Amino acid sequence: MTFDDKLGMKIALDEAKKGLSQGGIPIGSCLIHEDGTVLGRGHNMRIQKSSPTLHGEISCLENAGRLKASVYAKCTLYTTLSPCSMCTGSALLFKIPRVVLGENVNFKGFEDLLISNNVEVVNLNDEECIQLMSQFIKDRPEDWNEDIGEQD
Amino acid sequence: MTFDDKLGMKIALDEAKKGLSQGGIPIGSCLIHEDGTVLGRGHNMRIQKSSPTLHGEISCLENAGRLKASVYAKCTLYTTLSPCSMCTGSALLFKIPRVVLGENVNFKGFEDLLISNNVEVVNLNDEECIQLMSQFIKDRPEDWNEDIGEQD
Repeated sequence: MTFDDKLGMKIALDEAKKGLSQGGIPIGSCLIHEDGTVLGRGHNMRIQKSSPTLHGEISCLENAGRLKASVYAKCTLYTTLSPCSMCTGSALLFKIPRVVLGENVNFKGFEDLLISNNVEVVNLNDEECIQLMSQFIKDRPEDWNEDIGEQD
Repeated sequence: MTFDDKLGMKIALDEAKKGLSQGGIPIGSCLIHEDGTVLGRGHNMRIQKSSPTLHGEISCLENAGRLKASVYAKCTLYTTLSPCSMCTGSALLFKIPRVVLGENVNFKGFEDLLISNNVEVVNLNDEECIQLMSQFIKDRPEDWNEDIGEQD
């Protein structure tokens, strides 16, 4: 059974909204096994934990804990925003075979590197993800630029 | 002034040894500004914190805290072992212009991706780094394979 991608993205989006409600950057993620088990979920923690590395996807993978390669091999990683180079690299490290992203209108990460490494990439082009992120970037450009290593 | 790379690697190696003494995977890292300031240092925390994402470099960057792009732009990232895709991606995310690695005999990560993105990569081919890691891989292959997402 393939997990419903819209349901996976709903969990990631709920994480993004939770992050925003905490005063953080609204990017969320979840890791879902093909049997439907949600193995991890998380959101960007730059503001909340003064963390440069806890992007949504890293936060999710961290919360999922130590997993065997055989488990990652049956998972899909959901993220509300196109994954940056670090988060792309984390998916490649653990050989996660499938990445579903909410959108890449506000930021286009390293999707091409995923694809060239035979990761299946699905872009849901989700309107709610787009709106949430575009509003945040408009409201708080300094936090956003810091998160992606851009000069103010 | 360019910071002495051997001194930088000594700090990273000290971190690796600290990790091993804690029962962890002996990979260490530090982030050093061109003025010589050590902005962060850390080691792999998979065992100690049951953390899949706190590789040496991520741990170091996390400990360095929130930094501006203009600061990363003047830093060198030292790591005792060739950086995996995630750690490579973290250097690219923050546009760290220079990465110095202890060795790539025991593991060759994504150095080529760093180079193709105009990051200066220096391999010190350090004998102590090589020995430390090769002994660990020999002693604890399961922990090592898990750390790099390989099947046992």
